[in-house]
Amino acid sequence: MLNDATDALGRLLPQGVLRETAPAYLEEPRGRYRGRAGLIAAPRTVDEVAAIVRACADARVPIVPRGGGTGLVGGQVMVEGAVPLLLSLERMNVIRATYPEEGVIVAEAGATLQQVREAAARVERQFPLALASQGTAQIGGMLGTNAGGVNVLRYGNARALCLGVEAVLPQGQVMHDLKRLRKDNTGYDIRDLLIGAEGTLGIITAASLVLAPVPAEVGVAMLVVESPEAALTLLSLAQARMAGGVTAFELISGQGLRFLDAAVPDLRQPFADRPDWLVLIEVGLPAGLSADEALEGLFTDAAEAGLVSDGVIAQSGQQTADLWAIRETIPEANRHVGAIASHDISLPLSEIARFIRDASAMLAEMADLRINCFGHLGDGNLHFNLFPVQGKTRDAYDDIRRSLSRAVHQMVVARGGSFSAEHGVGRLKAAELAEWGDPARLGAMRAIKDALDPAGIMNPGVILA
Amino acid sequence: MLNDATDALGRLLPQGVLRETAPAYLEEPRGRYRGRAGLIAAPRTVDEVAAIVRACADARVPIVPRGGGTGLVGGQVMVEGAVPLLLSLERMNVIRATYPEEGVIVAEAGATLQQVREAAARVERQFPLALASQGTAQIGGMLGTNAGGVNVLRYGNARALCLGVEAVLPQGQVMHDLKRLRKDNTGYDIRDLLIGAEGTLGIITAASLVLAPVPAEVGVAMLVVESPEAALTLLSLAQARMAGGVTAFELISGQGLRFLDAAVPDLRQPFADRPDWLVLIEVGLPAGLSADEALEGLFTDAAEAGLVSDGVIAQSGQQTADLWAIRETIPEANRHVGAIASHDISLPLSEIARFIRDASAMLAEMADLRINCFGHLGDGNLHFNLFPVQGKTRDAYDDIRRSLSRAVHQMVVARGGSFSAEHGVGRLKAAELAEWGDPARLGAMRAIKDALDPAGIMNPGVILA
Repeated sequence: MLNDATDALGRLLPQGVLRETAPAYLEEPRGRYRGRAGLIAAPRTVDEVAAIVRACADARVPIVPRGGGTGLVGGQVMVEGAVPLLLSLERMNVIRATYPEEGVIVAEAGATLQQVREAAARVERQFPLALASQGTAQIGGMLGTNAGGVNVLRYGNARALCLGVEAVLPQGQVMHDLKRLRKDNTGYDIRDLLIGAEGTLGIITAASLVLAPVPAEVGVAMLVVESPEAALTLLSLAQARMAGGVTAFELISGQGLRFLDAAVPDLRQPFADRPDWLVLIEVGLPAGLSADEALEGLFTDAAEAGLVSDGVIAQSGQQTADLWAIRETIPEANRHVGAIASHDISLPLSEIARFIRDASAMLAEMADLRINCFGHLGDGNLHFNLFPVQGKTRDAYDDIRRSLSRAVHQMVVARGGSFSAEHGVGRLKAAELAEWGDPARLGAMRAIKDALDPAGIMNPGVILA
Repeated sequence: MLNDATDALGRLLPQGVLRETAPAYLEEPRGRYRGRAGLIAAPRTVDEVAAIVRACADARVPIVPRGGGTGLVGGQVMVEGAVPLLLSLERMNVIRATYPEEGVIVAEAGATLQQVREAAARVERQFPLALASQGTAQIGGMLGTNAGGVNVLRYGNARALCLGVEAVLPQGQVMHDLKRLRKDNTGYDIRDLLIGAEGTLGIITAASLVLAPVPAEVGVAMLVVESPEAALTLLSLAQARMAGGVTAFELISGQGLRFLDAAVPDLRQPFADRPDWLVLIEVGLPAGLSADEALEGLFTDAAEAGLVSDGVIAQSGQQTADLWAIRETIPEANRHVGAIASHDISLPLSEIARFIRDASAMLAEMADLRINCFGHLGDGNLHFNLFPVQGKTRDAYDDIRRSLSRAVHQMVVARGGSFSAEHGVGRLKAAELAEWGDPARLGAMRAIKDALDPAGIMNPGVILA
């Protein structure tokens, strides 16, 4: 079937669009899956994308859309079923327009996050989505997976930052909906349906995205808290004082700091005794209010309330970078140790502290292991990752890996949380979604998938197994 | 068919759920439509709603879901086709839970906006959606229509304020998805699909809603600007200074002020000479920054830049209320004059000033009339309403009303705008959506409607004619 499609595509498309598979396109960051592909198509225009989709729909060839390939749930690689066509958006990477006075930028799907952020900065605005993989991650993939990151607390996830999309639907129809409007109540929210559908309902080829004003004052502090409870009370206090101006509120555990000591000993850490829990807070404030004073005021109040015992407020750009480096180097330190299992979970904020305690106790009964719990506490989004005890490697846990993860996810779901907060479902968690998803919601998802993609060619196996 | 359903429902439901039609349920605020209904069902639980929907699906009886009935596009009344069952959510009006530390409230669909706002205030939080009809408008209806209002600029519309829903789908399935999570990437965004679907894809019975911190400092000013261009430059300046802390940014025209003079002569207006254009700005700021000083600073900068020529900053709660009363009384003054036609439109911000000029010139060629252009300028959302010249009444324009509205909407659509910014499509604008909607998007909408509501019973005639 792929051969039929290839012949058809060869006639339809300009030279250079169809390419041989290159190994990098068949990999994903954690090496869990090894993809297969017959060919790669790298179109430059939405019409080329539409031609490809139509030809594949006719020939029933599956399409795997591909952005920067940084996704962590296997959405970008197809491992079973018919040999797919990989559709890479890499050549659709133009910033089509920037409207600083509107707070809007229109970017093609293949533009990297960094490209968009730099284009925003050139007009004195910011695109507030912030991810470590910004040099590689592409707008289309980030919308397809509804990417999160460290600024969701204030600015929302990728979905909240998208005003309109241009997309090719699964039968090759081009949806022109690149609106630049904050309010538009003209029918069903197809845009938000495509966002987060991980390429299973169509291919986003361009998007109009929100640019936010750059706050006049930005401040960063790292505060020592006794417990996750205290961290959450601190968050409430900070939000009340800052009128919602808290941009990031990240939790770091003592375990994470010790992993950093081992993996990156040169990294400057502000507290000689590694505390059990740290919070990294960033605020963006109006003109006329010193961020330093605002953070001092917060610290004083929080100290009086017994919420924080120590802290540093960055006094320079270098110090700001140093504090952020601690948070951002944790994944590297984790890789150095080698995780048994990683969990991208979210919980209602008032359930978090208890969850951390209860899950830790439960896991201690199941195995000797170490937990590095860190992440976007302000969003209720933890990366709750399990590591071998010293002297063991992750292989030693091969037999119980699945039961550990299952126990963690079950506890999360039972407490109203999500087993995929920001990474998506992909192929990795499709079975869990089938098991734990609300049946009525799953039924609606399946009905929509069948209605929009009757040939079932769009990224099969992702989300709905 | 309704009789079959009535018999079935009589057996299924507790006494008191099924009621005779009362006239108030068949009306809508502008008196454009007169609805019909066989019976009214007023269930108290989601299971009762599900039983009603299943019985109606079996008997193919259309259902018109009804909230507070304040909608302006006829979504709440059915005027043709089979006699429907009206499903009123009025008895599902419980605030199920409040989580101040999470910033979440869980309310049933029939709770009024005022109920939710008061419940939020009791725990020192705010539910930021703000509408004039808050005493009547219900949460379910506001989600169904993705309601807007004056605070969308900062806090988003109803969709942005909803974390999860409980809903009954068109075949009677109950979707339990009342999550309280800021991040949850587990499949298609069914929640946002139901929001804004105006009851055509299911019935929202409860929702978890976002509560925001109450800003430490709130300030309100009314500023005289020379033109809509100047107003928009002022908005950029304000957003940059306030780090996104502008809560409301409303445009008021001289025509509106003169209408107020005639209709409500006792209303205090701050400027003796009625200016051509005013902006009402509200800011919510962090502790440690006086709102008064922040607005003074903005005024000084804006005056130096030639953007504003005069202004008042509210110095008390009474003055704040007086300034807001000017904005909020405009609809009453409009009713006093009697509009030829009203338009709830939005445009990309950078198109607005030109649109106001061009549309005014175009209409002047078509008829002698007066324009009251006002609204949520910060969102690009104008209420662009047409009125008779003095000495004439709206009836005199009966022959050209449709062509005037059509011309306005055509110009809006041609400039990338929306012919329904915040009121929705309902029955009033279904034909316009069919004409101007993107064909691929409309096709997807139709496919989804058919897939989720194969019997076509959910609010037929709304959105998709």
